[in-house]
Amino acid sequence: MSAHARRHPSTICFGTDPTVTSQSLDVTTLTADLIRHPSVSPDPGESQIALGATLEAMGFVVTHLPFGEGAERTPNLFARLGTGKPHLCFAGHTDVVPPGGSDWAHGPFAGTVENGRLYGRGACDMKGGIAAFVAAVSAFLARTPTPRGSISLLITGDEEGPARFGTRKVLEWMKQHDQIPDFCVVGEPTNPVAMGEVIKIGRRGSLNAHIIVNGRQGHVAYPHRADNPVHRLLRILAELTAEPLDNGSEWFEPSSLQVTSVDVGNTATNVIPAMAEARLNIRFNDLHTGAALRGWIETICMRHAPGATVNVSVSVSGESFLTKPGPDVSALSAAVKAVTGRDPKLDTGGGTSDARFIAQYCPVAEFGLVGASMHQIDEHVAVSDLASLTAIYENLLERTVA
Amino acid sequence: MSAHARRHPSTICFGTDPTVTSQSLDVTTLTADLIRHPSVSPDPGESQIALGATLEAMGFVVTHLPFGEGAERTPNLFARLGTGKPHLCFAGHTDVVPPGGSDWAHGPFAGTVENGRLYGRGACDMKGGIAAFVAAVSAFLARTPTPRGSISLLITGDEEGPARFGTRKVLEWMKQHDQIPDFCVVGEPTNPVAMGEVIKIGRRGSLNAHIIVNGRQGHVAYPHRADNPVHRLLRILAELTAEPLDNGSEWFEPSSLQVTSVDVGNTATNVIPAMAEARLNIRFNDLHTGAALRGWIETICMRHAPGATVNVSVSVSGESFLTKPGPDVSALSAAVKAVTGRDPKLDTGGGTSDARFIAQYCPVAEFGLVGASMHQIDEHVAVSDLASLTAIYENLLERTVA
Repeated sequence: MSAHARRHPSTICFGTDPTVTSQSLDVTTLTADLIRHPSVSPDPGESQIALGATLEAMGFVVTHLPFGEGAERTPNLFARLGTGKPHLCFAGHTDVVPPGGSDWAHGPFAGTVENGRLYGRGACDMKGGIAAFVAAVSAFLARTPTPRGSISLLITGDEEGPARFGTRKVLEWMKQHDQIPDFCVVGEPTNPVAMGEVIKIGRRGSLNAHIIVNGRQGHVAYPHRADNPVHRLLRILAELTAEPLDNGSEWFEPSSLQVTSVDVGNTATNVIPAMAEARLNIRFNDLHTGAALRGWIETICMRHAPGATVNVSVSVSGESFLTKPGPDVSALSAAVKAVTGRDPKLDTGGGTSDARFIAQYCPVAEFGLVGASMHQIDEHVAVSDLASLTAIYENLLERTVA
Repeated sequence: MSAHARRHPSTICFGTDPTVTSQSLDVTTLTADLIRHPSVSPDPGESQIALGATLEAMGFVVTHLPFGEGAERTPNLFARLGTGKPHLCFAGHTDVVPPGGSDWAHGPFAGTVENGRLYGRGACDMKGGIAAFVAAVSAFLARTPTPRGSISLLITGDEEGPARFGTRKVLEWMKQHDQIPDFCVVGEPTNPVAMGEVIKIGRRGSLNAHIIVNGRQGHVAYPHRADNPVHRLLRILAELTAEPLDNGSEWFEPSSLQVTSVDVGNTATNVIPAMAEARLNIRFNDLHTGAALRGWIETICMRHAPGATVNVSVSVSGESFLTKPGPDVSALSAAVKAVTGRDPKLDTGGGTSDARFIAQYCPVAEFGLVGASMHQIDEHVAVSDLASLTAIYENLLERTVA
């Protein structure tokens, strides 16, 4: 027996279903067990303790990595099986968003299965994804007891929150301990409607700007004695929105600038106000950097409101990133195709995820469940989708680390 | 003795100063007496009763014309001396704005004279103007007991307030009773710094617009699923403010459009809001009408926010008007020049006054005191300016109705 096989399940901590006769773990039971550990962001840590015990029983070396102090304390977990190359890592989070209401048909933490669907907070985002990967490893090891490469899991308890002491900190630790993988798959729900539709290979960057223009208050009948800050702000915003930022790039949609608010708050119809402000967000592709966009915004503001009359505050919450399609992404695409029959679209749209942190260290792609019900009341996942995702991850393991 | 002389002062109700030996009334005493009748808008009427008694004693036929019911009841007064042509009317208001604070050096209703200045609410806006006209008539009649033309006063108690039951209603009554004058002088303070600087021969119109654009809320990461009302509103405002409305006309400065507020109130940086609104004011000259500007605004709004997504509400608070310089304005200018040595500028700038109502019936011009302290704490007028204005009005009477 291999070193792995010697450590294989004798005391499985969760995911054991007496009706399942196979040696490998059952993904639906695993997911339901994880849902039954309520872990509204930040995860208090119990779901990770249970997960860690299961992974240790499977042969993983598990390291619990809490970061942050007091109310910010965030449980994280890194687990690795073997030390060989290539090193494939699965990244995810155990924390979930709040139930968001009491009118769930099934309790948000009950893990109820009904009519082929498993209900509960985190079912698709993303306890189901974690369970599918664990079940896939279990099935893979049953057939390949001594894989060539190594397998790891990077699990955080704060992806839905501020994400300050989560994946970002674990990656620093991994770097220090020479644990950076060759490829990472993030198990976020990427499919809009059906399994196999979308693999995300990058994300746009995001920038917020707050522009305050100070003028000189006065009576509307005497505009030459005042300096209307609304007009200066309008000229700034007109120039910022005059032209598209770009027409998209090979792997990205066009960047998008949205003015989200303009506020003056002047109720007097005969008064030119003293101040006007605006807020905007830019989702930008790989043709831009946050620093360049910041400079562009500041230059336009200064042109229309010279001197001390304008105050611009820009914060870049994430740069864009891209894992250019290569052998790793091809292997994931092939695994999706083999199981679902679909050629997944390689996409870079949508919001942000922890993949933006991982991209600074290694190639990363995202593929998980159908996300249609995520963050909603009665979040659920089709039991057949859990099986499908497990099969895809197992197929990927065969293709990469067998 | 003439009919006028027979009715001349035996019982003068105010304005009598035992130190003044002349037969005519003293303008400073008259002004102080009017100030001592507190008449914060709308005037409760006592100042007009005193004024009416004085005018009756001088030979005027006085008609008190209260309009409006309950809290809106507004005292007004029309007084006419003689029935001959031409008919010169003086228009003014006895109501004043509130004291606006308790830190007056001299009580707002004390009518105190100190260092050559008379202090009190209404000193320059415009009880001093009324007193100067009454004193001028008194002096004029002393020298010209039987003038060829006739003289009248149109006095309202609500010019500083909503002005619904004031000058507008008195003019309707005057029209019905065949009392429309040939020329009207409004005694508002028109001089910025020194007597004789400015005669107003018109005013710009004023229009307020409130534009509401409704869009479709959404996430900034998916702008194609939303419809950003801020961007539509920005395009509307950019077009409205792109070009000057005009370059001015013979007697008017260029029209001016001022966006006074833009409001969205969206604090979520990742959300495209559902609604955006703006308010603007236009001060327009005789190249425009309120109706034409309304149509222009509505057309631009519809172009950038077609269908039911935009709601525009426009209110025209006054059209522009102009009394083209002719014999009447020339007589007023000559009177100003004769007394002050200055050639007054014929101006149409600034805010609105009741002259906008009068202009619908007859030629009207505005000339009064120095307005620098009007509506402020310690409103005051130079005693010498009161004398100067009295002399100017008397000179005008000589030139027109003698």
